Amino acid sequence: MTNLIGRLRNETRSKSNYRRLHCTIAQALSVFGDQWTLLILRDVLSGLGRYEEIQRSLGLSRNLLALRLRDLDEQGLLRREAISGTRRFTYTPTEQCLDLRVTILALAEWGDRWRPDPDGPRLTITEQGTGAPVTLGFIRKHDKIAVDIDAVAVKRRIKG
Amino acid sequence: MTNLIGRLRNETRSKSNYRRLHCTIAQALSVFGDQWTLLILRDVLSGLGRYEEIQRSLGLSRNLLALRLRDLDEQGLLRREAISGTRRFTYTPTEQCLDLRVTILALAEWGDRWRPDPDGPRLTITEQGTGAPVTLGFIRKHDKIAVDIDAVAVKRRIKG
Repeated sequence: MTNLIGRLRNETRSKSNYRRLHCTIAQALSVFGDQWTLLILRDVLSGLGRYEEIQRSLGLSRNLLALRLRDLDEQGLLRREAISGTRRFTYTPTEQCLDLRVTILALAEWGDRWRPDPDGPRLTITEQGTGAPVTLGFIRKHDKIAVDIDAVAVKRRIKG
Repeated sequence: MTNLIGRLRNETRSKSNYRRLHCTIAQALSVFGDQWTLLILRDVLSGLGRYEEIQRSLGLSRNLLALRLRDLDEQGLLRREAISGTRRFTYTPTEQCLDLRVTILALAEWGDRWRPDPDGPRLTITEQGTGAPVTLGFIRKHDKIAVDIDAVAVKRRIKG
């Protein structure tokens, strides 16, 4: 038990260290580093808008869900609106949240490739209308031509 | 203090619940749901291969780093090789890890857009050779034509 608490304390401490890191990934993860957070956002992005719907979908504790929804509202990822005549709320995705779809689908594609389900892919991503399978990749901004990942250069600016 | 421990215990319990979720994102996140994990993988992907280099880059505790590196080796994300004549190891990315570049860069692009640094973008992603800026997006698998995210349909298979 003492060990467990010691380990948890370390985790907490390291989480706050990590928030101070100057790095775009650290910045992003300080928002949704908690694993539930991305799952909640996925639910809201897929149209679940009520507390009860999300709670049923994920089966996480009511306290934890309420806490996460409040954080996400404060961070600007969800818009919380009162349902008139009740004390309840609906949650809809903001622009910030819509822009997370790429990250969530990247994670989902990876999961299907490397932690596959024996019954086959859990996810299909297609082009509406044609039904052609699509996948995430790199695209040149000016002419929308696809670029292979091995031909992509990534440069991080080091804070001077 | 009691409250803190109570909260941490809940977090731990919910993390194990979350591992049982049948969902591709949950599967992926059960591997690198810890925020440090993606940062360690980013470091290894950017060429840092030694324990000391990663430790210096992230500034996290030696115990926590050793624990995460062992997990990542067991999960098949890193390859650990002994440096001959020493008791030390180098870490290199496996195929699984290389395939995470899309996710990591999606997260990084989001971070630069929505949690920007006052001094400007922390990351530039370009095409090698031409230097043209590139970004992540959807591409049709058969002909590599870019598809706008709003023209993409995502379907999850529900376990029957």
